[in-house]
Amino acid sequence: MARLKMGMVGGGIDSFIGDVHRKAASIDGMIDMVCGAFSSSEEKSIASAKALDVPRAYGSFEDMIRAEAKLPKDERMDFVAIVTPNYMHFPPAKMALQHGFHVICDKPVTLTLEEAIALQKIVNSTGKVFALTHNYTGYPMVKQAKAMISKGDLGDIRKINIHYLQGWLSTAIEKTGQKQAAWRVDPKKSGIGGALGDIGTHAENLVEYITGLKINELAADVTAFGEDRILDDDGNILLRYTNGAKGTMTFSQIATGEENNLGIRIYGTKGSLVWHQENPNQLVVRWLDRPMQIYTPGGNDIYPEAAKYVRIPAGHPEGYLEGFATIYSNFAKEINQINTGKSQSTSPDFPTINDGVRGMKFIYAAVESSKQNASWIKI
Amino acid sequence: MARLKMGMVGGGIDSFIGDVHRKAASIDGMIDMVCGAFSSSEEKSIASAKALDVPRAYGSFEDMIRAEAKLPKDERMDFVAIVTPNYMHFPPAKMALQHGFHVICDKPVTLTLEEAIALQKIVNSTGKVFALTHNYTGYPMVKQAKAMISKGDLGDIRKINIHYLQGWLSTAIEKTGQKQAAWRVDPKKSGIGGALGDIGTHAENLVEYITGLKINELAADVTAFGEDRILDDDGNILLRYTNGAKGTMTFSQIATGEENNLGIRIYGTKGSLVWHQENPNQLVVRWLDRPMQIYTPGGNDIYPEAAKYVRIPAGHPEGYLEGFATIYSNFAKEINQINTGKSQSTSPDFPTINDGVRGMKFIYAAVESSKQNASWIKI
Amino acid sequence: MARLKMGMVGGGIDSFIGDVHRKAASIDGMIDMVCGAFSSSEEKSIASAKALDVPRAYGSFEDMIRAEAKLPKDERMDFVAIVTPNYMHFPPAKMALQHGFHVICDKPVTLTLEEAIALQKIVNSTGKVFALTHNYTGYPMVKQAKAMISKGDLGDIRKINIHYLQGWLSTAIEKTGQKQAAWRVDPKKSGIGGALGDIGTHAENLVEYITGLKINELAADVTAFGEDRILDDDGNILLRYTNGAKGTMTFSQIATGEENNLGIRIYGTKGSLVWHQENPNQLVVRWLDRPMQIYTPGGNDIYPEAAKYVRIPAGHPEGYLEGFATIYSNFAKEINQINTGKSQSTSPDFPTINDGVRGMKFIYAAVESSKQNASWIKI
Amino acid sequence: MARLKMGMVGGGIDSFIGDVHRKAASIDGMIDMVCGAFSSSEEKSIASAKALDVPRAYGSFEDMIRAEAKLPKDERMDFVAIVTPNYMHFPPAKMALQHGFHVICDKPVTLTLEEAIALQKIVNSTGKVFALTHNYTGYPMVKQAKAMISKGDLGDIRKINIHYLQGWLSTAIEKTGQKQAAWRVDPKKSGIGGALGDIGTHAENLVEYITGLKINELAADVTAFGEDRILDDDGNILLRYTNGAKGTMTFSQIATGEENNLGIRIYGTKGSLVWHQENPNQLVVRWLDRPMQIYTPGGNDIYPEAAKYVRIPAGHPEGYLEGFATIYSNFAKEINQINTGKSQSTSPDFPTINDGVRGMKFIYAAVESSKQNASWIKI
Repeated sequence: MARLKMGMVGGGIDSFIGDVHRKAASIDGMIDMVCGAFSSSEEKSIASAKALDVPRAYGSFEDMIRAEAKLPKDERMDFVAIVTPNYMHFPPAKMALQHGFHVICDKPVTLTLEEAIALQKIVNSTGKVFALTHNYTGYPMVKQAKAMISKGDLGDIRKINIHYLQGWLSTAIEKTGQKQAAWRVDPKKSGIGGALGDIGTHAENLVEYITGLKINELAADVTAFGEDRILDDDGNILLRYTNGAKGTMTFSQIATGEENNLGIRIYGTKGSLVWHQENPNQLVVRWLDRPMQIYTPGGNDIYPEAAKYVRIPAGHPEGYLEGFATIYSNFAKEINQINTGKSQSTSPDFPTINDGVRGMKFIYAAVESSKQNASWIKI
Repeated sequence: MARLKMGMVGGGIDSFIGDVHRKAASIDGMIDMVCGAFSSSEEKSIASAKALDVPRAYGSFEDMIRAEAKLPKDERMDFVAIVTPNYMHFPPAKMALQHGFHVICDKPVTLTLEEAIALQKIVNSTGKVFALTHNYTGYPMVKQAKAMISKGDLGDIRKINIHYLQGWLSTAIEKTGQKQAAWRVDPKKSGIGGALGDIGTHAENLVEYITGLKINELAADVTAFGEDRILDDDGNILLRYTNGAKGTMTFSQIATGEENNLGIRIYGTKGSLVWHQENPNQLVVRWLDRPMQIYTPGGNDIYPEAAKYVRIPAGHPEGYLEGFATIYSNFAKEINQINTGKSQSTSPDFPTINDGVRGMKFIYAAVESSKQNASWIKI
Repeated sequence: MARLKMGMVGGGIDSFIGDVHRKAASIDGMIDMVCGAFSSSEEKSIASAKALDVPRAYGSFEDMIRAEAKLPKDERMDFVAIVTPNYMHFPPAKMALQHGFHVICDKPVTLTLEEAIALQKIVNSTGKVFALTHNYTGYPMVKQAKAMISKGDLGDIRKINIHYLQGWLSTAIEKTGQKQAAWRVDPKKSGIGGALGDIGTHAENLVEYITGLKINELAADVTAFGEDRILDDDGNILLRYTNGAKGTMTFSQIATGEENNLGIRIYGTKGSLVWHQENPNQLVVRWLDRPMQIYTPGGNDIYPEAAKYVRIPAGHPEGYLEGFATIYSNFAKEINQINTGKSQSTSPDFPTINDGVRGMKFIYAAVESSKQNASWIKI
Repeated sequence: MARLKMGMVGGGIDSFIGDVHRKAASIDGMIDMVCGAFSSSEEKSIASAKALDVPRAYGSFEDMIRAEAKLPKDERMDFVAIVTPNYMHFPPAKMALQHGFHVICDKPVTLTLEEAIALQKIVNSTGKVFALTHNYTGYPMVKQAKAMISKGDLGDIRKINIHYLQGWLSTAIEKTGQKQAAWRVDPKKSGIGGALGDIGTHAENLVEYITGLKINELAADVTAFGEDRILDDDGNILLRYTNGAKGTMTFSQIATGEENNLGIRIYGTKGSLVWHQENPNQLVVRWLDRPMQIYTPGGNDIYPEAAKYVRIPAGHPEGYLEGFATIYSNFAKEINQINTGKSQSTSPDFPTINDGVRGMKFIYAAVESSKQNASWIKI
């Protein structure tokens, strides 16, 4: 397969998530980074490009998109990776799509629900590929969980508990100049959701991805515990799913001492499963009539839907970057499919703009419910 | 210390919980069982007594209480253990107290809130000792958790997630003649709460015990998933505590494959802790500024409040029966204290009638909230 | 079943292991303690009896055995529990057996191999029941492991790793007056093995119990790391079994920070299993062709050989005392069987004098091998 | 930093370890693969290059080395990665070094000890950088373990248990045409050690890396359990270290059901640690006087020696490929250091030819000891 060329918006050398995207893009050997608008300062952008050994640097995404569009087809970038704060997702995504570039974008998809819906229209009208990096869906054991439920192994799903707990905002580190914290607590850059948008949407996306169910309505009680914080840094939500299943979601960035504790328990009539992101290579499955089992990537009884994403033999742990890489690789394969004249997939195995819109609706519903003292709001 | 004499109501030889109470009562060598009304059939009661090598059997609790009250003081039972289904708690408890016997009773304390309040008055007016077997408070690591929070080690508590998940009612085993299931799904015997009363009250008691906080209000969404079930077998609850902390409770008896998965996560401003009943000898503590620690009974840095309940050296696991035994032993010590002329403790370290009343209020609030589509109800 | 009467040698109120024996004896409601020679000081013995509410106290085991033997049959003790240091096992065991009492004794069975062999003869000639408290064989998951191997579920056993790691002798606490440590490091009281006798014999007994195999020969490298210690406090052993299986044993009492970490891994041609004493209610089983399974007491697919020792429902953890109690209860049932006129079991499910002799041979072989620089010695 | 150019020997598209090396080399964005002799069939080599989008393919390593050496300096490969079976390590390594290329090579370093010593001389005389991919030393928690011991946090090391357990050779899969198995059981391709060389050397390297100690002598009992196998597939070893510490190593490829269970327990006078490769982001540390702690990458109290190898925030698990990548990246940095005119490091943080020689000596000592019925052999 021909390697694709990536241009990046944001993600200067000091960026956490930019580096994650770069490493994830490189793991499967399908993608080379050829250019970037790494900073709104041209000087900084050039410095990042030099440090990263990237051929072309630009001082703005507009410059990059315009300049790349003028390059010969076999030289210019194939797609844009957007790794900026939320408020800076929509403008480059829109422009890139409209200039004929595919887009892969960090989550949540946009600053506002309106932007998300507008972007959905642009994606549909341009026919370009758009991927959203809800990376946790890339883990093999998450794929296995989805496959097991889809095939009915667990029976009808009745109860779901999901949690996403971090502690890094337990103290007011945004006041110490910590950049990651600073923009996340700022509604102008983050949107109306704080932790809700940053990690709640990951939880929402994960539960719908694994179960194939949709959240029908929710009752949310979100809170800003941190001093002077406007946006939520914690929340607890009751959930009702379209099939009658019920459950909870709890998320927090003030859960002191937690690192990145995303976990899910799903109960069906025949069996149940538990998965934890911090120990991602184990899928615990309990049965009505057999002892508990622990599935592992590369181990016995893994469905092809999961097995095809296992890169290395059993017992050799894959991690966060590999799961993230799977999003990039499936996105790259989709582009290649189009580039080689095949039609676009109707349901590709990566999160799309539709997941992005759904995530924004989730944020809006949860904020609205919380304003109404945890009344039920439909998504 | 002189051994105390126990009379039992319920708990024939086939009973699960009766056997638990007997073993728990015997572990610390403070209690001998001297009589029982093990069944409403005198014949069965006698058979149980014979099998258990218990000196005196009665065909009803009324007979037992009357007969024992007439025996010389050094022969008659000191207290009554009530291990019957919920509807059969209040009558023997009331009569025993009024005849001068101390009482230890299984949970939830009564069939209705009204009975609980009535019983509270009787306990107070008779001055007898009344213990409720919320046995999970008896684990050493639960005591350690309570001590750490009470001393401020974790700072101000802001978030609490508690879950109690069982799967034994995943199918309609009550229709197969399973006795444990049959009475629990019957409102006449169980009260207005199903899983809510059976295990939800354990969760409610545990969280208030460990944190020292009170639940102020709740929004509950409880469900009867099982075919033809009237009472809830599952529920999800948003909780708000008096100090401003927030959280969730999720409980279920249709969580397929779960055995007795009671667990709690508590987050404060300085640290957090996690405890799981199925692995009760580990207390995981996370800190703002230190690596995660795992405390063990008999290990380093255990507070005296917990250490005094550790029976055997570090690494020799204690289990459910030992935790249960601690309730019995503290109850027995309290009686001995009174018997030796000392005054009653104002805050003994075992659950009392006040915990019982609180548990009933919790059930009633949750049922009411759920009827009102998860509106907030104060406890 | 009629309750049996126990007399105890050793185990005054400050004793660790005496208290364990008492609690273990009481859990299943089959045994009452009626007398004790708790100390070689009659005064202390009486004080212990009073504190423990035990009817009869003696100043020596000789006094106890002689006096009890003269009591009417329905009053005198049925058996003697010996919970003294190793050097004080043989004399009371011998005398008790010869006076018609059954005996249950702590491990290792005697001070010397010669004593063990002599005791074996006495047991055989008197026809009394003799049990040795290798208590780890009492855990339900150990029974399940044994049953699975015995039925061939794991195929032919080829590899076994066993470890028993404690850290309590990491520093020279015997010099601080710690009584448990003081006698264990003294060859006159402990015998020729230190940690080897104290915990190595547990490991040896456990592996032979679970697998049904016998250790054929061993090559041992034992060490006294502690300052001024004569007896080993650590060791590493290569093992070869009669069926051709091979493996290792490692044990230590200077494994800093370890509490009571006894664990075993057993590999057969079809499957393998792992069990850890500190988490005794899980048996991990791995298969050639299926995902890993975790068996639990009370869970699915537990063999009757194990299930019959599960006291409480799944998910309600049983611990060290319950496993210990199973030794006592099986011993008590055996005595009752004889008392009710039935013949003695040929292979009762508790460790016997034969296990005791085997344990002493293991100690002697390991010490001899180590003297010969880890040459192979047959047991 | 300028990206380096890699040429690969072996590692066609179906190869397990070739793919691992490629992914590992790509993660940190320092290395591009420019050529390969992926197969001894030129046709296959070209096909692999095409599939991998690699510019230049060769039919033999000789062709590759000669041809690349003739290219302009800024075009030709900087180093050779050797990912062939053991017997095919020495020839390309020797030739590459002698033609001025740096070399990174899979383990064990060569087929024979003689080759290893010869290679050591060549490395020393050519002054080129040589790295050996004992990749397990690349995990951050392994670096943390090494740093803690080096700083004396655990006190003097007294006891070490290491195990490396796999089950993939439990059945005779080499007879089914499984290529990975076929060469590993063939002495002509593997050398005198089977599992000993394949995984035993990883264990040997890891324990010496973490502790900074050297194995002084060993007593080994290695076995070929598999039908018709000549080389060992299992072994148990007693170890004595230069400082007086003692321990065990157990390794197996017939440990049914095990995936890649490499684990180590190290006990010092002040503390101890446990690390497991299958859960690599936790380092368990036990202390004489504090509760057990669990260190995590990105968590609190991580030494700079480890922290500098953490790529992503706490709680985002890194895996096998990232650990492997650290070997590549340190190797690349060393080459860059030389390329930019600085002198070579005297103790670089990656395994070198000296580790390779030591690994071969370990294999030879273990085989010799086992022939002599587990006599002690010095390394």
